[in-house]
Amino acid sequence: MGDVTLTVCTTCRRADVDPDATRPGSILLEALKETGVPEGVNIRGVECLSACKRGCSMVLSGGDKRWTYVYGDLDPNEHVDDILAGAAAYAATEDGLVPWRERPVIFRKQSIARIPPVDAPSQE
Amino acid sequence: MGDVTLTVCTTCRRADVDPDATRPGSILLEALKETGVPEGVNIRGVECLSACKRGCSMVLSGGDKRWTYVYGDLDPNEHVDDILAGAAAYAATEDGLVPWRERPVIFRKQSIARIPPVDAPSQE
Repeated sequence: MGDVTLTVCTTCRRADVDPDATRPGSILLEALKETGVPEGVNIRGVECLSACKRGCSMVLSGGDKRWTYVYGDLDPNEHVDDILAGAAAYAATEDGLVPWRERPVIFRKQSIARIPPVDAPSQE
Repeated sequence: MGDVTLTVCTTCRRADVDPDATRPGSILLEALKETGVPEGVNIRGVECLSACKRGCSMVLSGGDKRWTYVYGDLDPNEHVDDILAGAAAYAATEDGLVPWRERPVIFRKQSIARIPPVDAPSQE
């Protein structure tokens, strides 16, 4: 059940940070890599997720069978361990749907959007 | 260059609408289908995109080679033609990147997030 990708915006700012300093998004990406991503999870940077009002932001995705999640308001000083735990739980599922109580609080409260698997039937 | 999917949240509300009436998201989905989706575009409903503060919301996606876009603040009374034109322009690309000036204004201004293609290299 590999093939999970964590995509971190490297240009994201945060309201509380000097705009001329290294971008918090770039710091977040490095901190995640240094702490160590879970098995089965690939990590990459992207220059903009177009979620600039909710920086730092990232996407958790994993093939055609999983839901995709976009998260925001992330803090490289506070959330690294929770992000990695949440990514591991996501990678351990087949559909990306981690039981609510097993999700880190930041994943419950800081979701920007979620996208159904490509083959999910229409719900009307 | 088919395989494009327009995923519309059917439970989305809007601030200006009676909460007990048919959900604007459901009305939007029906209006798009009735007006007619462009060739190569599939349309489906989903019960929640978790973008509830920005309803109506929808996702435009199209296989492993295209960027995915999430849009919000959509109005079934105002935006149906623009959404369909934007979806057609997106479907006509290989990577989902429609030149800025050719995007409907609602796509330029009401993007909630965008997600790079799964194989896009890391940008750090």
